[in-house]
Amino acid sequence: MPTLYLPDLLYTEGTFRPGLGLLVGDDGSILRIGADLATDNLMAVKMPGKAILPGLVNGHSHSFQRLIRGVAEHCGPNGDDFWAWRNTMYRAASQLEPDDVFDVARMTFLEMALSGITAVGEFHYVHRRQDGTPYDDPNLLAKRIIDAANSVGLRVCLLRVAYARAGYELPPNPGQQRFYESCEEYLESVDRLADDLRDESSTVSMGVAPHSIRAVTLESLKRISAWAEERNLPVHMHIAEQVAEIAACEREYGLSPIRLLAQNGLLSDRLTLVHAIHTSPDEVEALAKANVTICSCPTTERNLGDGIIDAEKAIEQGILFSFGSDSQATINLLEDARELDYHLRLKRQRRVLLDGIDGEDMAARLFRYATAGGAGSLRMETGLLEPGRPADFFSVDLQDVSIAGVAPEELLSMIVFSLERTAVRDVVMNGRAVVTEGRHALADEIVSRYREVAVRTISARS
Amino acid sequence: MPTLYLPDLLYTEGTFRPGLGLLVGDDGSILRIGADLATDNLMAVKMPGKAILPGLVNGHSHSFQRLIRGVAEHCGPNGDDFWAWRNTMYRAASQLEPDDVFDVARMTFLEMALSGITAVGEFHYVHRRQDGTPYDDPNLLAKRIIDAANSVGLRVCLLRVAYARAGYELPPNPGQQRFYESCEEYLESVDRLADDLRDESSTVSMGVAPHSIRAVTLESLKRISAWAEERNLPVHMHIAEQVAEIAACEREYGLSPIRLLAQNGLLSDRLTLVHAIHTSPDEVEALAKANVTICSCPTTERNLGDGIIDAEKAIEQGILFSFGSDSQATINLLEDARELDYHLRLKRQRRVLLDGIDGEDMAARLFRYATAGGAGSLRMETGLLEPGRPADFFSVDLQDVSIAGVAPEELLSMIVFSLERTAVRDVVMNGRAVVTEGRHALADEIVSRYREVAVRTISARS
Repeated sequence: MPTLYLPDLLYTEGTFRPGLGLLVGDDGSILRIGADLATDNLMAVKMPGKAILPGLVNGHSHSFQRLIRGVAEHCGPNGDDFWAWRNTMYRAASQLEPDDVFDVARMTFLEMALSGITAVGEFHYVHRRQDGTPYDDPNLLAKRIIDAANSVGLRVCLLRVAYARAGYELPPNPGQQRFYESCEEYLESVDRLADDLRDESSTVSMGVAPHSIRAVTLESLKRISAWAEERNLPVHMHIAEQVAEIAACEREYGLSPIRLLAQNGLLSDRLTLVHAIHTSPDEVEALAKANVTICSCPTTERNLGDGIIDAEKAIEQGILFSFGSDSQATINLLEDARELDYHLRLKRQRRVLLDGIDGEDMAARLFRYATAGGAGSLRMETGLLEPGRPADFFSVDLQDVSIAGVAPEELLSMIVFSLERTAVRDVVMNGRAVVTEGRHALADEIVSRYREVAVRTISARS
Repeated sequence: MPTLYLPDLLYTEGTFRPGLGLLVGDDGSILRIGADLATDNLMAVKMPGKAILPGLVNGHSHSFQRLIRGVAEHCGPNGDDFWAWRNTMYRAASQLEPDDVFDVARMTFLEMALSGITAVGEFHYVHRRQDGTPYDDPNLLAKRIIDAANSVGLRVCLLRVAYARAGYELPPNPGQQRFYESCEEYLESVDRLADDLRDESSTVSMGVAPHSIRAVTLESLKRISAWAEERNLPVHMHIAEQVAEIAACEREYGLSPIRLLAQNGLLSDRLTLVHAIHTSPDEVEALAKANVTICSCPTTERNLGDGIIDAEKAIEQGILFSFGSDSQATINLLEDARELDYHLRLKRQRRVLLDGIDGEDMAARLFRYATAGGAGSLRMETGLLEPGRPADFFSVDLQDVSIAGVAPEELLSMIVFSLERTAVRDVVMNGRAVVTEGRHALADEIVSRYREVAVRTISARS
């Protein structure tokens, strides 16, 4: 039987509108949006005092990194930077059994759901046993991640990572031995994964993710990109997060990573580059021309000291953006959204820099990046409340102290800039109730199992 | 009858300890902290699965600015900066009746309580009628703020602001006419306020707040400081938030604001300077030598594009810090705390810069600033859980997804860097239950009255 959701306000076509119902079919898709849709043959869900919005799409996640939240905020004897943090992260990755991968991913995905996220792109690079030998199924851990998303109720795109080396002229790094596959092994793995996912639900999809220019040779990158092009799948890659990576690429190829991609015809509208902080105007122009998406992760980029992306120039050049919770230092995609402007304000000592470009309101733009932007990058149909699209949405309590007292025309700006998690009340993915009144049915079990893993692995300071 | 709180963990003497009870007397003060305190003559409050911490102290608040949250994130035709934002803020200030001041302050203080804040320094500068004439009681609006704090259950230090002029060689600004008093009028007002507060509860106190060097002449500043010195009251002042203010001071006096204060003997351990972003090393050294507190407001400073304080150098020089929610863009003092390090990370492209200075852990330091630092700045006894101090504390749910799964020795770091508001469960101020299981008894009424004010004044885009 179809379900009719009846909130006070519904965000559709770029604005909050009162008096509309959202009619969802048994297959989880939106049948209609309109007034007076109530009939006898449906279940009506009244949502007084609430507004509903399309579910947030988390474009870049490493779920297991939740394990080092909090414990990585100490400085070693030689100071701390991205590379020191990475060693802590590798210690976490080295300890996880397949069930741990599942338990930790469920915890991370649970927090995403409770924050209004309905879809995630999981950039997954832990493939092998602790000693570096392959599991019988090279996608065993990837499938545990997919299981976790299904268990929690998130739409997932498994971005299976290719990771072949430590870096140009560097010996293998023992911390990375669970990640390494040769290009042949990788292509076999994704072939198998594509086969195995054929019968999965419509909420599961996949993409390829050459980790970075550092970790994958140009030759492999071309083969992986060709594989994805044949299947019309998304390609995600880290780029220009740290200056040191760019210098290494220039030593190896005589070109920056983005110029290398451009010169080899590897830029496309299926490509998402994660971070892209340290770029030149001509590089950004090349990305814009090819309709590449930049996935920005400001809550992680500030935690790791990566730097500040010049989003104003990038947007003026026509770049598409999405957001990712990345290292899970916090899971709050609207915080990522507001920081895209906030960090530029700190740098330029001005305010509201991303407003009005091409006539678009800043909050509408940032929210679009956090929803449709992520969906486009993951090649998902979600991200907008429109008939024919999946019913992925979340509700907010209009009485919550963080957002109460604003007219509908200012509500989106309020939500993007000030919403606290207490305001998120219901989350629906593909027509299925995932969170109801701030509660997830499996929360106690998920948190309890997560705590066991954390205690056993790295919750004590190492 | 005394009350014995029994959480799983209690943060005292710089660490989380299990198995301790907190015994609170009928006067609201902490009688004892220890194991095995249960006797027949007390009420035991079991708090399984929770940790309790000293209440957060919000050192700098303009409660009415909550009204422009969300609505100020649009860019005008000439761009947007601090000064454009200020005009929007003045429009809000110009419209409030005394009851509105009360209703808006209650909303802001309610949100503070729900986030774990138990004490606030309200930097209050709206004194007069809309037309600039005085109320019969020049402290009418200040008292409505105090009423609001009492109603919600926050400890409050009313920092009554002196505001005499628009700035050096500037004509009076119509947007400021509710703020202006002559120095004589101001001193009369604070005399009266001190008298009127003599019979108030111990949770209400006051201080003086010359708004800024821009708004108060040096001569007045000396008289106000002398008035506060006689009474041993705190002195708070905005300083070095925007570069333009420093230039104006140099034109008027031939000195920067901080040098002007130093040369006139106005630095003391009762002085708190709010922001202090644009400073030189010798200025910071002078502040440190005099035990001046800097109240840092990073969530506001990023919103207003003020810039990034070099907290590492300031701490190395011995500066004391506190935090303030200031413009209420968000109310999250732990977010302010983490941004003190995060914004420096963005600037320096390093991590964890404030750790280990003088051997202190970074999270412990940031949390100290958010509690005892604020208390010191407001000359309050709160900020630590110790016998003899007031029972001001909040509890967190150790199962909340934002902080679950960490060993006690890492819990503070987890809370400072990642706590979401859903984790804050109970708030107690002076032994009185303010928030219980995330709920405040007056929340519905407070939000409802706030909405009426917001709709009537500025919630529609102007």
